[in-house]
Amino acid sequence: MPRETLVDSRQEILRTAARLFQQRGYDATSMNDVAAALKLSKGGLYHHFQSKDEILFEIMNHAMEITQERVLGPVRGIADPEERLRALIRRHMEVVLSPRDREITVMLHENHPLPPALRKRINQRKKEYIHFVEGLIAEVQTKSQRTRQTKGAVSPRAAAFALLGMINWIYQWYKPEGELQAINLIPQFTELLFGGILA
Amino acid sequence: MPRETLVDSRQEILRTAARLFQQRGYDATSMNDVAAALKLSKGGLYHHFQSKDEILFEIMNHAMEITQERVLGPVRGIADPEERLRALIRRHMEVVLSPRDREITVMLHENHPLPPALRKRINQRKKEYIHFVEGLIAEVQTKSQRTRQTKGAVSPRAAAFALLGMINWIYQWYKPEGELQAINLIPQFTELLFGGILA
Repeated sequence: MPRETLVDSRQEILRTAARLFQQRGYDATSMNDVAAALKLSKGGLYHHFQSKDEILFEIMNHAMEITQERVLGPVRGIADPEERLRALIRRHMEVVLSPRDREITVMLHENHPLPPALRKRINQRKKEYIHFVEGLIAEVQTKSQRTRQTKGAVSPRAAAFALLGMINWIYQWYKPEGELQAINLIPQFTELLFGGILA
Repeated sequence: MPRETLVDSRQEILRTAARLFQQRGYDATSMNDVAAALKLSKGGLYHHFQSKDEILFEIMNHAMEITQERVLGPVRGIADPEERLRALIRRHMEVVLSPRDREITVMLHENHPLPPALRKRINQRKKEYIHFVEGLIAEVQTKSQRTRQTKGAVSPRAAAFALLGMINWIYQWYKPEGELQAINLIPQFTELLFGGILA
């Protein structure tokens, strides 16, 4: 089967499955549908993944790896907290807006009940991310309070959830051809968040 | 069938269906499941709704009616734009945080493909809401620019989408027993948004 050799990576399977799950819904998509879209035999697909739940978990896991590699990893080295937060917002938005990764990252928010052990691992990584953002916002506020007069009415935790909401909600409305392009949206969301936490 | 008479309202059906859709997923929930949860015969359920799509559409429609009655309606009469925006944020958050309406309103974001005519009607109402918020933010910024010096770096459109993201994302993380209670969250999100649009 020459076509099977083309599916050389689990990533291609995850990407195709993520697209189908979004187009048709997770429950309405069968393992057969995924195999057919990849021109794989059902056996060929099961060689890589034993169940649809495993595929969903691996998509979510891959999304968290993308976040690690493209957002958390690169920003950790930035010394100034304000610059670090600006970079985090930009990089997180770039992942969400990326045509290539959007379908993977959107699946993080699929609320299909996974087996508890798998769900726990995903939730743990999500928590680590929110704690990182929360700590970073706290640093920015602390530094700013030393240099100018700010009230700090918005707690780092509320601000972190607000920021994730702003960014993760983008897939609900964003159209690449719309009037709000990524190039305008990233600085505007950044200014909005900074205005809010330093108000 | 005495039990059937207890299901005296379409609303009870919508509420139960919304709960099942969220627990099990829309596709994985059958009309039989909905009927069973309501202790209705399948015929009794079909008497009210002809299909699962119709139920989903009516849930979304009901969510938009709740928004109309509990958010848009009451705030339209508020003369001062800043007060109007504060009331809109508070009221929208109260709907999202309400144990009674949460299950209905969350379904607005279900991306299951509806028949195009139904989908169009929902999207039209969503658009009207976002335009209302956008116009209101513009009014607040304009008024503020007359009274103090603000840059207005964040456009009303970007700010409106950010606000809806912050609020509509709440269902992804909010726990009533968590440390961020509604009573703290509403003023913090309000300050964050005002800080951002008046920065």
